[in-house]
Amino acid sequence: MEKINIRTNKRNEIIDITKGIRTLVGNSGVENGICVVFCMHTTAGITINENHDPSVKSDILFSLEKMSPIHKEFRHSEGNSDAHVKASLMGSSLNMIISGGKLVLGQWQGIFFCEFDGPRNREICVEFISR
Amino acid sequence: MEKINIRTNKRNEIIDITKGIRTLVGNSGVENGICVVFCMHTTAGITINENHDPSVKSDILFSLEKMSPIHKEFRHSEGNSDAHVKASLMGSSLNMIISGGKLVLGQWQGIFFCEFDGPRNREICVEFISR
Amino acid sequence: MEKINIRTNKRNEIIDITKGIRTLVGNSGVENGICVVFCMHTTAGITINENHDPSVKSDILFSLEKMSPIHKEFRHSEGNSDAHVKASLMGSSLNMIISGGKLVLGQWQGIFFCEFDGPRNREICVEFISR
Repeated sequence: MEKINIRTNKRNEIIDITKGIRTLVGNSGVENGICVVFCMHTTAGITINENHDPSVKSDILFSLEKMSPIHKEFRHSEGNSDAHVKASLMGSSLNMIISGGKLVLGQWQGIFFCEFDGPRNREICVEFISR
Repeated sequence: MEKINIRTNKRNEIIDITKGIRTLVGNSGVENGICVVFCMHTTAGITINENHDPSVKSDILFSLEKMSPIHKEFRHSEGNSDAHVKASLMGSSLNMIISGGKLVLGQWQGIFFCEFDGPRNREICVEFISR
Repeated sequence: MEKINIRTNKRNEIIDITKGIRTLVGNSGVENGICVVFCMHTTAGITINENHDPSVKSDILFSLEKMSPIHKEFRHSEGNSDAHVKASLMGSSLNMIISGGKLVLGQWQGIFFCEFDGPRNREICVEFISR
């Protein structure tokens, strides 16, 4: 199992981690199999989306903010339940395929760490399974 | 493949199943690999979120209710399309890493079964893959 | 790794791909293990939901449209950020269990490709890991 440390800088932030995951896949020696990326936090998630136009990231954050605002009815004492909801909407883990020693991704796909209660020091774990 | 039976008691309910999954991981004998948890239903889902303050669970249910209400335009005859939507938002499966014979989870992370159309008897399946 | 090509016909469309995945699982020769289904696109996703009443599919699309409309504040030049958001809400990959040579699915569960910016030619990848 490998780990990647991520420093986030804003409360809501989407960070491209594709390059780091690709490097770990290359180092793993797995020719054909799968790669699991797991987020160790409850106010952050992981997703795959477009890595070309950075506006997609800010548009996703804007839309998530509308979907999951801080409701006045929230009872969680830390006051960050909006972030917990967004984390579950994006999900805690990703499942990707490795083929010919490389991560299988579509032309426009990137892997993104989604911070919803930063800035914080975050950690993700990555595991590889050979077919 | 292992199965866990879950009895839910309300229409919307989030139930901590971490302990049961940890036990199955321990019994599996897998030292390093992954664990897949799969929900067999279309009006329930599985997610990972905070297991410390129980208000997080009720806040998530409150927010999902705002996000996915019973729209008057719904056409599904059973009248529970709000629950089908919530199930897809949370997701049907989880992917976790096993390291040193133990499930890898962050300090505040728990595994939750999400009931959106209870009370019902539910079933989840769990499989383990060694690295 | 196997591929499935899908032709979508509307901007928003949910298409049942269960039969194709079941066939690939049968051909894979895997008796016990997991099956990973991966969507190669950033304006489409994959989910599991009810395959019995087709109204569930249209109700899910209706609800997602309410959740993720085209906000006037969006900045992405292609104007399809609503579709990128929906893709991340549904997710890019599915994780299923294979037991006794067959895909483990609940009685009402089907596997659905979710198009949010069609019509387009789409591609999904499928990998199998034996236990």
